[in-house]
Amino acid sequence: MVEKADFNEIEYKANVLIEALPYIQELNGKIVVIKYGGSAMVDDLLKENVMKDVALLKSVGIKPVIVHGGGNEISRWSKYRGLESEFYKGLRVTDTETMEIAEMVLGSVNKGLVSYMESVGVKAVGLSGKDGFTIKVNRKLVDGKDIGFVGDIESVNTDLISILLDNDYVPVICPIGLDENYQMYNINADEAAAGIAVALGAEKLGFLTDTEGFYLDFEDKSSLISRISVEEAEKLVEEGRIEGGMLPKIQNCISAVNGGVKRVHILDGRKSHSLLLEIFTNQGIGTLIYKSEEIL
Amino acid sequence: MVEKADFNEIEYKANVLIEALPYIQELNGKIVVIKYGGSAMVDDLLKENVMKDVALLKSVGIKPVIVHGGGNEISRWSKYRGLESEFYKGLRVTDTETMEIAEMVLGSVNKGLVSYMESVGVKAVGLSGKDGFTIKVNRKLVDGKDIGFVGDIESVNTDLISILLDNDYVPVICPIGLDENYQMYNINADEAAAGIAVALGAEKLGFLTDTEGFYLDFEDKSSLISRISVEEAEKLVEEGRIEGGMLPKIQNCISAVNGGVKRVHILDGRKSHSLLLEIFTNQGIGTLIYKSEEIL
Amino acid sequence: MVEKADFNEIEYKANVLIEALPYIQELNGKIVVIKYGGSAMVDDLLKENVMKDVALLKSVGIKPVIVHGGGNEISRWSKYRGLESEFYKGLRVTDTETMEIAEMVLGSVNKGLVSYMESVGVKAVGLSGKDGFTIKVNRKLVDGKDIGFVGDIESVNTDLISILLDNDYVPVICPIGLDENYQMYNINADEAAAGIAVALGAEKLGFLTDTEGFYLDFEDKSSLISRISVEEAEKLVEEGRIEGGMLPKIQNCISAVNGGVKRVHILDGRKSHSLLLEIFTNQGIGTLIYKSEEIL
Amino acid sequence: MVEKADFNEIEYKANVLIEALPYIQELNGKIVVIKYGGSAMVDDLLKENVMKDVALLKSVGIKPVIVHGGGNEISRWSKYRGLESEFYKGLRVTDTETMEIAEMVLGSVNKGLVSYMESVGVKAVGLSGKDGFTIKVNRKLVDGKDIGFVGDIESVNTDLISILLDNDYVPVICPIGLDENYQMYNINADEAAAGIAVALGAEKLGFLTDTEGFYLDFEDKSSLISRISVEEAEKLVEEGRIEGGMLPKIQNCISAVNGGVKRVHILDGRKSHSLLLEIFTNQGIGTLIYKSEEIL
Amino acid sequence: MVEKADFNEIEYKANVLIEALPYIQELNGKIVVIKYGGSAMVDDLLKENVMKDVALLKSVGIKPVIVHGGGNEISRWSKYRGLESEFYKGLRVTDTETMEIAEMVLGSVNKGLVSYMESVGVKAVGLSGKDGFTIKVNRKLVDGKDIGFVGDIESVNTDLISILLDNDYVPVICPIGLDENYQMYNINADEAAAGIAVALGAEKLGFLTDTEGFYLDFEDKSSLISRISVEEAEKLVEEGRIEGGMLPKIQNCISAVNGGVKRVHILDGRKSHSLLLEIFTNQGIGTLIYKSEEIL
Amino acid sequence: MVEKADFNEIEYKANVLIEALPYIQELNGKIVVIKYGGSAMVDDLLKENVMKDVALLKSVGIKPVIVHGGGNEISRWSKYRGLESEFYKGLRVTDTETMEIAEMVLGSVNKGLVSYMESVGVKAVGLSGKDGFTIKVNRKLVDGKDIGFVGDIESVNTDLISILLDNDYVPVICPIGLDENYQMYNINADEAAAGIAVALGAEKLGFLTDTEGFYLDFEDKSSLISRISVEEAEKLVEEGRIEGGMLPKIQNCISAVNGGVKRVHILDGRKSHSLLLEIFTNQGIGTLIYKSEEIL
Repeated sequence: MVEKADFNEIEYKANVLIEALPYIQELNGKIVVIKYGGSAMVDDLLKENVMKDVALLKSVGIKPVIVHGGGNEISRWSKYRGLESEFYKGLRVTDTETMEIAEMVLGSVNKGLVSYMESVGVKAVGLSGKDGFTIKVNRKLVDGKDIGFVGDIESVNTDLISILLDNDYVPVICPIGLDENYQMYNINADEAAAGIAVALGAEKLGFLTDTEGFYLDFEDKSSLISRISVEEAEKLVEEGRIEGGMLPKIQNCISAVNGGVKRVHILDGRKSHSLLLEIFTNQGIGTLIYKSEEIL
Repeated sequence: MVEKADFNEIEYKANVLIEALPYIQELNGKIVVIKYGGSAMVDDLLKENVMKDVALLKSVGIKPVIVHGGGNEISRWSKYRGLESEFYKGLRVTDTETMEIAEMVLGSVNKGLVSYMESVGVKAVGLSGKDGFTIKVNRKLVDGKDIGFVGDIESVNTDLISILLDNDYVPVICPIGLDENYQMYNINADEAAAGIAVALGAEKLGFLTDTEGFYLDFEDKSSLISRISVEEAEKLVEEGRIEGGMLPKIQNCISAVNGGVKRVHILDGRKSHSLLLEIFTNQGIGTLIYKSEEIL
Repeated sequence: MVEKADFNEIEYKANVLIEALPYIQELNGKIVVIKYGGSAMVDDLLKENVMKDVALLKSVGIKPVIVHGGGNEISRWSKYRGLESEFYKGLRVTDTETMEIAEMVLGSVNKGLVSYMESVGVKAVGLSGKDGFTIKVNRKLVDGKDIGFVGDIESVNTDLISILLDNDYVPVICPIGLDENYQMYNINADEAAAGIAVALGAEKLGFLTDTEGFYLDFEDKSSLISRISVEEAEKLVEEGRIEGGMLPKIQNCISAVNGGVKRVHILDGRKSHSLLLEIFTNQGIGTLIYKSEEIL
Repeated sequence: MVEKADFNEIEYKANVLIEALPYIQELNGKIVVIKYGGSAMVDDLLKENVMKDVALLKSVGIKPVIVHGGGNEISRWSKYRGLESEFYKGLRVTDTETMEIAEMVLGSVNKGLVSYMESVGVKAVGLSGKDGFTIKVNRKLVDGKDIGFVGDIESVNTDLISILLDNDYVPVICPIGLDENYQMYNINADEAAAGIAVALGAEKLGFLTDTEGFYLDFEDKSSLISRISVEEAEKLVEEGRIEGGMLPKIQNCISAVNGGVKRVHILDGRKSHSLLLEIFTNQGIGTLIYKSEEIL
Repeated sequence: MVEKADFNEIEYKANVLIEALPYIQELNGKIVVIKYGGSAMVDDLLKENVMKDVALLKSVGIKPVIVHGGGNEISRWSKYRGLESEFYKGLRVTDTETMEIAEMVLGSVNKGLVSYMESVGVKAVGLSGKDGFTIKVNRKLVDGKDIGFVGDIESVNTDLISILLDNDYVPVICPIGLDENYQMYNINADEAAAGIAVALGAEKLGFLTDTEGFYLDFEDKSSLISRISVEEAEKLVEEGRIEGGMLPKIQNCISAVNGGVKRVHILDGRKSHSLLLEIFTNQGIGTLIYKSEEIL
Repeated sequence: MVEKADFNEIEYKANVLIEALPYIQELNGKIVVIKYGGSAMVDDLLKENVMKDVALLKSVGIKPVIVHGGGNEISRWSKYRGLESEFYKGLRVTDTETMEIAEMVLGSVNKGLVSYMESVGVKAVGLSGKDGFTIKVNRKLVDGKDIGFVGDIESVNTDLISILLDNDYVPVICPIGLDENYQMYNINADEAAAGIAVALGAEKLGFLTDTEGFYLDFEDKSSLISRISVEEAEKLVEEGRIEGGMLPKIQNCISAVNGGVKRVHILDGRKSHSLLLEIFTNQGIGTLIYKSEEIL
């Protein structure tokens, strides 16, 4: 902890709390969707800090919803089972056995997050898109190729999530959906987070990533963009100026903003409390994508 | 289907429906907990029939709650993982890795049941005892021996289950709980079903088993008991007249009845619709354990 | 009862109940109006069976509303009173004294049905259109001729009926209304049933009659129509192909369907449980009149 | 109308309204049961005035409940039917046919009152004790003699009445009840009024009678008692000082007060608006029976 | 009190109460705003009578809202403070110190009325337009001249008033508002009453004044107008036929009627119970301004 | 502001917010009563900071209630009015005119605080104990001497305050009450705060004072007590060890704790944000008086 005179520390503490006041007032009763993944999901200290951040959001009257992926665990368990992990254009080719493993792994991560949240004093419930038939999907085709049980979101039924939010639970959701024949599919977690945020009319959507934000040129650290309107982002996409890894994420950001989410943030999940700082302080963290007319 | 004249068939159908009337009236709005396990969980036709039975219960205003185990799947996945399954007095010795596998397997069974229920038109939500900190446990000691992460139920918080029931969802619950340090434990599914039924003030608790009911002498099929008061059952236990396999089940029945559940049934899950027939017809199916003053 | 092996009987019972499942799910919380009259109102066994059918509807979450007539009782009491029963085009010419008798007789039938329903475990309330000013009428003119206190429905105020339905009572309604000066009028019971069904937005309206259904040619039993769209029925009426007795009933069916009732049934009240069978089984009973776009 | 200068009349009007203020405040939301019978039920002007009085009670937030008898109509209709009216100790000997007539006549009076109330702007619903199984009775024995279908109240289920009151309807109730086998019985209307008032926890019960109140000596008009405690009334009964006609009424008053009704009034139904004046003015009208500790 | 025979007095009382019935029924649950000022606020007997009138309104289910001014008290306290009262076109020029005094005086009158209301059994709450930011104002300019902290109503937020009305409190409101910078302003009480009545969708607005009503020619007492449509009133204003003192009051009446208030009354606050008589009797008191299509 | 590296500042901010988490969780939905007086009410910066502190409490789900006094303003206005301020044992001798001035001054302070709260985004309502007859008092006698309209709290009716809290308003209350004859009285503000806190079952009561806390020996600054149980405080009072100025405050603290308020704080209102720091940080500020069994 920094060294300083007692009185100043006290004064400083008060200022930090007071700085948070307008943000708390503005977000009271609003829904904030957090896509949780990457380093923040693996490193224990980061994990603990994310959980505390969510707890703080909840304690001041914000309604957080967490959407998470399964990280490397799916590959690990596939190997135990003797299966090869195969990818096509960055998406896991998913046969019946892989889907089964994906569900087990995502379920385990899901309930693990739930007990973590309970341990910091927050009531949580772990869901997949099967529960209450919350996420309905269609089979995704990638350039016309069938890659198995990978789904595109057709619709999100928010009934169950809303009941849980109204009763003070934090929904923790893993990205599995059902098609109209009740066959399950894996969904990209970013896409699920964006779809859920839109369906809920969320105020904010934050992606916890392993990057500081969105760089115009990934090699050039000085090209980090701190805020960009959705129109500008669409233009960059059209011009082909966004490279591979970042492209789908930006596209999810764009679809979330166009679907009505006021602000979407790409946050650095490798830094402790980036979520908290973004929400409650004047510090600009990561990259903000916004609808131009919403921000004056 | 039986052969008979049309008119008689129509009349017969009407009689079956009318026979169900008093049972429907009596159970309206009441909670029925179903422990789902054994053959009924493995055979696809039986599984479909159990799901339809639950759907019918739900459709006539009863509130079903399902508690299930993981069957042989835990052993199967332990083997993939290269672990030996070890048992002590019928209970799985559960180390950290086995607990992890148990959670994954139970979660997979859990969400599988959820999608099955959705497919027959019933809204369902899959929970473990972690969700909403629903099940709190202590570490079980067996004859003073520590067998790892196997828990005894300390308390059941029914808030989350009740919210789901009030909103027309069928809770499907797998038997995992947390201790006061948020460490997870496996729980015997029969014990979990009994504990949940008591906490909810359930009207009925039905165990779907691989036996026709409770035999005084398992070798003698004619010794099947169709109804027995809890006092008589306690006497049989004290006298040591109940043999190994059946003993813990009978003890769970006794604790459920003593905890306030009006009627507990041991049903033959190997026969289609045994649940339905027990509840909606005059046919006595399996064994009923009851509080003597409740049944006149 | 049919003779068959025990096991088959049990299996059969389960099948009947499972057959009812989709119908129960579809009608849950929906309003079904039943016009009760004819033999079903006179024969004691039939009466008991209708009451049980209504009880079953109620017990599975359907909201039944009963509308009834007075049968031959009005003529009987008119005779005691020394009055001649006079009819014009099938309608009773109704002077003040006849109206008084009609109200007494309908009231007696009404409360008789109420106590019958209570005896099968259903809470019921007997109303006339006076209660809560539920039915407002105008004086009917038949071909310009005034036939006394016979009313046409002007409007139905559903407030009172809805309150009773919401509080789990079955409304039993006799067809008497008030005009704007609070003068009472007799109403044709079929017309009242149709008007009430429309005002309530009922899902179904069933007429219990003394015929098997609607015959194109009443002499030719093979001309029984099991289903007909409202457009076809209107065409038959226009073409003058529907004979006297059946004409007003078909017209009430047409006006109910055009008013928004999804399905209207002409049922044979002389056969036990025809109501039940129509609603809960695959058996087609009687004649169904429907809006063509509603049924696929 | 009295002759006086305009200004005084205006002032006087204001005073009358202001005089009513404390009574309105005191009775707001309270239940007042009115036994309606005698001349007030026969004379058209009196009838209209009673209806308006009830309407005024209702309009200022009081919850009126009306209980009525059938007057001479039962005898009249028995005669049409060719039956002899037979009495034993003032009670009508009631066979099946008489009971049927009683129900018809009471039903007709009942719905007549309902439409009268509607005509003065008050929503009303006519009930018998059958509706919602509101009144449960036992067969009355008079000095050990069976006089047929005459019932003693065993219990009053106030559910239905309360729902109607909560929804702003005035319940109008005729004194018919059911026994445990759903057989109907006639009940003395005063007894029914007292029983209903007690079950509802009514604040007041008013009997509209054909007498000015309660006379110690009926021959001596100066012996009119304006207020008497229930203890004093019980003493008079015990001492045999209350004569025939008045005795059962006083006994009903006593049982109402002992059952918790704060004030019971015997009012002169032959005088217009006696109900109104008793409730809203300082004028003492008729006789008040009260629990001594309640009135200070 | 007028002299007359007892019986007639009783009959007369009943008639007065019955005369009030349709008015009570019509106004049940409706909001009536009363601008309280002038003599009625100074004379103790008049004050008591106004409070009782409001209590009677409240007791019969009407929802009264009181808006009041500060009368001569502001001048009196300005003098204590050593300030000159300055007026421009009838409006008090209001500097900071005068505003402070106005708030103190209005607050004192406000809470005085509250305790008066409590003393006649009515729950009341005293508000200014600051509470719940109920009244938002702009600075008024009079013919382009700035007269200080005198405000024009920009908007009325009815949330707080509605919560109080729903919980059975009478809001007593003094005419102070805030601008967008939270600076307070004095508002003309008539203007405040009209603005509040419009915002609440009040049924009636009554101005208690020191005149019998609206005279076409103030010198000619026979020119008192008992009712006038808003269209006619607007025409008189346009034609310049309304003189100084009465003009702003008539303009407030016109804006209230045009804003949706059904009836606006100018009442003589110098006569006891003029409010009561206007509302509950056939006596036309003062002047009624109405929307022509509303009154048939 | 302290100088430090950016990264550290960010980390530090996060830590301050996270430090607040358990306090926010613990106090969510709880009532905190704040006695506002002294320097904090006079100095503009302090005032602004107190308002922001209250806003922050409110924004995180705490329910603040403010009770305030009138400071020196009463004396100032008494002087304008030409009255002498007279005190007896520290209490203002209050005649009718002084009471009138007290009400005006307190009302002005009250509504001033209300508009201040509105300006920081918090909905507030200013009340005196007259509103809703919230505070009932008896005339206080000091050593048997009548000092005029100074009241002791007899009871606090929390209905109105609770309605406002439930609807998200901050009640701002000035210490005036009514006796049973609706005569108003001045109440000591500390006593009013304690009485209101007890009646509301508040979790905390904070007194903003012009001292750092409670000193055992006021001359010896090192004798500041940071926490003391109510039993110890009572002992000090009994032993006569608490000197004049502090004695009544400590007595109000004791009566609040004994009345059920969990924690009472004496805070230094001269330091900015002392309220905030006490509630949301680990810093112990001022003096805490507590019930010994409540704090472990």
